[in-house]
Amino acid sequence: MPLLHLSTWPEVEAYLNTSKGMIIPIGSTEQHGPMGLIGTDALCAEAIAKGVGEATHALVAPTISVGMALHHTAFPGTISLRPSTLILVIRDYLVSLVRAGFQRFFFINGHGGNIATVKAAFAETYAVLADLQVPDADQVRCELANWFMCSSVMQLARELYGDREGSHATPSEVAVTQFLYPEAIKRVPLNPEVNTGHAIYGATDFRRRYPDGRMGADSSLASPEHGQQFYEQAVQELSDRYRQFLQAD
Amino acid sequence: MPLLHLSTWPEVEAYLNTSKGMIIPIGSTEQHGPMGLIGTDALCAEAIAKGVGEATHALVAPTISVGMALHHTAFPGTISLRPSTLILVIRDYLVSLVRAGFQRFFFINGHGGNIATVKAAFAETYAVLADLQVPDADQVRCELANWFMCSSVMQLARELYGDREGSHATPSEVAVTQFLYPEAIKRVPLNPEVNTGHAIYGATDFRRRYPDGRMGADSSLASPEHGQQFYEQAVQELSDRYRQFLQAD
Amino acid sequence: MPLLHLSTWPEVEAYLNTSKGMIIPIGSTEQHGPMGLIGTDALCAEAIAKGVGEATHALVAPTISVGMALHHTAFPGTISLRPSTLILVIRDYLVSLVRAGFQRFFFINGHGGNIATVKAAFAETYAVLADLQVPDADQVRCELANWFMCSSVMQLARELYGDREGSHATPSEVAVTQFLYPEAIKRVPLNPEVNTGHAIYGATDFRRRYPDGRMGADSSLASPEHGQQFYEQAVQELSDRYRQFLQAD
Amino acid sequence: MPLLHLSTWPEVEAYLNTSKGMIIPIGSTEQHGPMGLIGTDALCAEAIAKGVGEATHALVAPTISVGMALHHTAFPGTISLRPSTLILVIRDYLVSLVRAGFQRFFFINGHGGNIATVKAAFAETYAVLADLQVPDADQVRCELANWFMCSSVMQLARELYGDREGSHATPSEVAVTQFLYPEAIKRVPLNPEVNTGHAIYGATDFRRRYPDGRMGADSSLASPEHGQQFYEQAVQELSDRYRQFLQAD
Amino acid sequence: MPLLHLSTWPEVEAYLNTSKGMIIPIGSTEQHGPMGLIGTDALCAEAIAKGVGEATHALVAPTISVGMALHHTAFPGTISLRPSTLILVIRDYLVSLVRAGFQRFFFINGHGGNIATVKAAFAETYAVLADLQVPDADQVRCELANWFMCSSVMQLARELYGDREGSHATPSEVAVTQFLYPEAIKRVPLNPEVNTGHAIYGATDFRRRYPDGRMGADSSLASPEHGQQFYEQAVQELSDRYRQFLQAD
Amino acid sequence: MPLLHLSTWPEVEAYLNTSKGMIIPIGSTEQHGPMGLIGTDALCAEAIAKGVGEATHALVAPTISVGMALHHTAFPGTISLRPSTLILVIRDYLVSLVRAGFQRFFFINGHGGNIATVKAAFAETYAVLADLQVPDADQVRCELANWFMCSSVMQLARELYGDREGSHATPSEVAVTQFLYPEAIKRVPLNPEVNTGHAIYGATDFRRRYPDGRMGADSSLASPEHGQQFYEQAVQELSDRYRQFLQAD
Ligand code: NI
Ligand code: NI
Ligand code: NI
Ligand code: NI
Ligand code: NI
Ligand code: NI
Repeated sequence: MPLLHLSTWPEVEAYLNTSKGMIIPIGSTEQHGPMGLIGTDALCAEAIAKGVGEATHALVAPTISVGMALHHTAFPGTISLRPSTLILVIRDYLVSLVRAGFQRFFFINGHGGNIATVKAAFAETYAVLADLQVPDADQVRCELANWFMCSSVMQLARELYGDREGSHATPSEVAVTQFLYPEAIKRVPLNPEVNTGHAIYGATDFRRRYPDGRMGADSSLASPEHGQQFYEQAVQELSDRYRQFLQAD
Repeated sequence: MPLLHLSTWPEVEAYLNTSKGMIIPIGSTEQHGPMGLIGTDALCAEAIAKGVGEATHALVAPTISVGMALHHTAFPGTISLRPSTLILVIRDYLVSLVRAGFQRFFFINGHGGNIATVKAAFAETYAVLADLQVPDADQVRCELANWFMCSSVMQLARELYGDREGSHATPSEVAVTQFLYPEAIKRVPLNPEVNTGHAIYGATDFRRRYPDGRMGADSSLASPEHGQQFYEQAVQELSDRYRQFLQAD
Repeated sequence: MPLLHLSTWPEVEAYLNTSKGMIIPIGSTEQHGPMGLIGTDALCAEAIAKGVGEATHALVAPTISVGMALHHTAFPGTISLRPSTLILVIRDYLVSLVRAGFQRFFFINGHGGNIATVKAAFAETYAVLADLQVPDADQVRCELANWFMCSSVMQLARELYGDREGSHATPSEVAVTQFLYPEAIKRVPLNPEVNTGHAIYGATDFRRRYPDGRMGADSSLASPEHGQQFYEQAVQELSDRYRQFLQAD
Repeated sequence: MPLLHLSTWPEVEAYLNTSKGMIIPIGSTEQHGPMGLIGTDALCAEAIAKGVGEATHALVAPTISVGMALHHTAFPGTISLRPSTLILVIRDYLVSLVRAGFQRFFFINGHGGNIATVKAAFAETYAVLADLQVPDADQVRCELANWFMCSSVMQLARELYGDREGSHATPSEVAVTQFLYPEAIKRVPLNPEVNTGHAIYGATDFRRRYPDGRMGADSSLASPEHGQQFYEQAVQELSDRYRQFLQAD
Repeated sequence: MPLLHLSTWPEVEAYLNTSKGMIIPIGSTEQHGPMGLIGTDALCAEAIAKGVGEATHALVAPTISVGMALHHTAFPGTISLRPSTLILVIRDYLVSLVRAGFQRFFFINGHGGNIATVKAAFAETYAVLADLQVPDADQVRCELANWFMCSSVMQLARELYGDREGSHATPSEVAVTQFLYPEAIKRVPLNPEVNTGHAIYGATDFRRRYPDGRMGADSSLASPEHGQQFYEQAVQELSDRYRQFLQAD
Repeated sequence: MPLLHLSTWPEVEAYLNTSKGMIIPIGSTEQHGPMGLIGTDALCAEAIAKGVGEATHALVAPTISVGMALHHTAFPGTISLRPSTLILVIRDYLVSLVRAGFQRFFFINGHGGNIATVKAAFAETYAVLADLQVPDADQVRCELANWFMCSSVMQLARELYGDREGSHATPSEVAVTQFLYPEAIKRVPLNPEVNTGHAIYGATDFRRRYPDGRMGADSSLASPEHGQQFYEQAVQELSDRYRQFLQAD
């Protein structure tokens, strides 16, 4: 424990006698600019979820590594589910787990582009569970926790990077991956000019607006040390939030 | 003009020579507490959309009256689409309209519960349009404008109602419907105690948390005069925003 | 009452103690030739449904304004759902309403192109309701009432227009919209020659066959006075039919 | 020839040089009362389709034996597709065939319950073909020919059976199966009383209304000789109609 | 009996008192080279299923004539369902039949390309039946029996044809159709060279690899006499297997 | 490299100039008996895929950790996609990647239950890619490589375990996880009696047949040393196979 993947089913059965909660990391597999890793959002979510799992003795599901990244698909290496597919994936996860007795799902998310679809999926799933007359379907609760929107994380990013944090391929998320995977730190020159301020529409438009993939972010400011700070802040804040989620009446 | 429903196809053809924009009101058909109308979200969105259409000479589509209100379905009179259905509905609307030459879709929304699904639908639709190789698919842009989140509207609500505005069956939205439909003003005693602060999960849980349907809102503060103010603020602010949306490069 | 949108949920709850019936107007958003309104089918269905609701004290749902009009999509301004989407929409409406206690659904339809899909949706929905084990699922009944096929309406159309009534953008439906929306009466010259007699296939073929969108109809024969007559005939005949629908054992 | 199943692909390739037409029989697998065969609708459609194929040198596809019979599913032996499934089946058939060069699809149908769904499927498919940009998608035409609604057939049924023809498990359709499968003629006593006049809703309601499955029909009037007459009339009338269908401009 | 299509519902009701088993033939409608029939897979499966039905007094459903043959669709005359469609078709069949009391489904399959999808459909359907809480859903069992993989059949093919049996448009399957439909034996010269050994990917690639449609098979070795042997072997072996399937605890 | 998640998009762009191949690990999240890890199938597939990626300089996608495990869902901790969902997931992965230029997809699979659905997904996807007219869609090839069916692996298992290898929660797969995750080796007594020989149907039936989750396997025979051997054999054999896959004409 706390990884579901490293547990046996009797261990899960025993866990359910102590907790109905599960943490589900969800990220994305998408371009993160010239130096950000394609797995950034999944890797960050996964690591922080494990940290929260350790801190709270919560079971952590395998990471949903591919999310809703359609707007990044004009860059090679991006993989995206359709929103309609991701809704079904989350429905299937939760139906499996609720039938087994889980009731509190805490999604630790690493990708802004997932938010809308995941919330839609929660709504769809509550209705499906009721349709299926799964016992205690009305006790099921899902919460979406975006690590990059933790107040401690946002404050730290502001302090370290000001408005060079940007909104995609940000130095904060790049830093976390540098902390986690120092062997995969990329040294590439970045154009100091980076576009910002355009809304997100389709994939072709996105690449036209943001030719190297970054949105207003100076990824080069990242460092492994920063990454460790972000990681620790996120784990602490989300651990508190997870405990509150479980304790809410 | 500006109502699509009151136009002919040659008029639409002519309009397309002057603008690629369309306003699409979207609301919901759901309980709004003991005195709020079931159609509140649709009626507000529709009226404000017409106002914006008049102010900006924009074409206004028929209202999507039924949205994503699954969490309200434990109250009679609520009708809800599944998120997965609403995604298809929006896809179908936009595919029809983009094939005809429209490129800028400004959704004026009256219901917080629609936001996630509508955004997911936009993402899905951009990809579908690219798949279909519709000419100029990469020029299509959708924007979601929630009238109740206009800064002028929120400020006015704060001034008039403080924290008795709440978040569902709010006096501000009730006021707009009283302005629009004075014949349907409901006089019913409201419990001065109203729950607030619980997150939204499934429908049964929602009704358990919010027994009369209101979320922290004192709907009784509404008046038609307030409603007119909200209406006018929303129309003005969203008209500006629509113009900017069209002009953005 | 009788509009669901102008009711509160406690009013709906009270209504359900007196009746399990609901009227659902369904139309289309599609070209209706050079002088017919794009909203013709939705506007007629909505107005007649309200009239029937008033006459019978029945609750009237918000109008399904966009229906199955794929064959009209080669004309700008048309919006259509796929049949597969419309089936889901109707399913979602009815599941919401049956769970709340409604059992008799009287669809007042303004568009011939909806008929097949709506009937398919009824069949699909009966099975879904049984699957969901909704209480009293086996008591649910849906009826499709096409106002333009009322015998009184068809007779009047024959008397007034003979075979110039045609089958799309008909003077009878145009007349009803002129009665309802006199401010939107269009004065445009119509080609006295109008095609007729071709079966309906895809959208491109349709526009090739019917270049201005009319099918054998001389829309110019319409007048608001005629419209009032059609409206009143339809309301009367459908009110009778709705009462019989409710009373059937 | 004319059976697709007994042809080779080079024969089909050669056929396409002479005709773009295909006949597709569609029936149902559903209860037909105490003496009617479960396969009645499929068997009649298949045999008549083969007859028309022979008369017109048209290629006949394999029969769609299971159709939309949800309302009969409370009787054992019935198999039904959902409308949404049948739409996909027809879409898949036609996409395969149109890509190969077929353009005229003449569905010979043996089951009233299929009509709505099949028409919806045609509409859906025209749009799908256009979406796929299949060459000559706009030349594709589908026609639904219900053998039991041939004027010659209906007249003969009236002459032979009057109002004892009924509308399900009719002596006319039973007669055709007796002509085709004399070894499967069932001799069972029929209750002379048979219900009639109730609309069709869900499966449970249907069985309650029509306890032995027949709708107003005295199946016992059928004879193989009648069946031959019906068969021949249908083949002749539908052969004419198929030729006109191919020749229509 | 044993054909469902030639039975009445009371006969099926009686049958269910003696057996919960049903045989469902499934084939394909696809090119089988220059001399193999397009219906080969369906015709073989259907005939063998009838033979097994007679031998075991089992009820035989109508044949699923169109299966998963997407890789053959570059040859005219092929019709294919998508895997996702075929899954729904099988789900619909089984839901209908399980609700009526059937529990053992023995699919006699004539097409290798169906195997994966049919197995996926079984898994999907078990879950759907559990979701629907159909009584005794957990007693339902499906078995897929590929006649061409019967050990007796494969041995005979090896003896008769050695490695000229190939894997598509094989002399063994062609022989069975020659036995069943001697009137449809095709006499065409076959290229003695035939490709083999390429994996199956998409339709265009398939036709490029296998220009006349055969995969390593010398269809010309087939004879009706061989066909009878194959037929009899398959019927005998599958009859035994069906009996074991029913008797398994 | 070779992990997609640790690469940047410009690195992927460069990679595509040297290879069109990608390795996609796919496993399952399902019970593996009292001592096998729930993540066994995903962990093995992932590790072996990385090994093959290193040996062949191939890019490795993030693991599909949740597969088709519906039959294991009666044991807590199992998560399963429906086959219909998994088909969409694979479709979405491949559409993203093919649009970016990838053409050879080598799925390294750790779970027998995935095989049918994955193969169905390949067929569906080839057709979707052709529908979408993605450039070079007809060059796309997918191969499914089950590491546990490598001849070297099966031989080693036979040598080490004989028929105590069984077919689920096998000592061979448990051994690989022990090699990979020695910190997660479970010491639990296993019932020496273990069921075997029952076919797989639904989840409830599966648990009834196999009460502790194992199918004929003596997981206790596993050791980390064995695991290393299996791992190395699988990596070597699959590396060869991947190279052949890329080189095939
Ligand atoms: Ni990111
Ligand atoms: Ni509201
Ligand atoms: Ni109309
Ligand atoms: Ni019939
Ligand atoms: Ni074959
Ligand atoms: Ni395993």
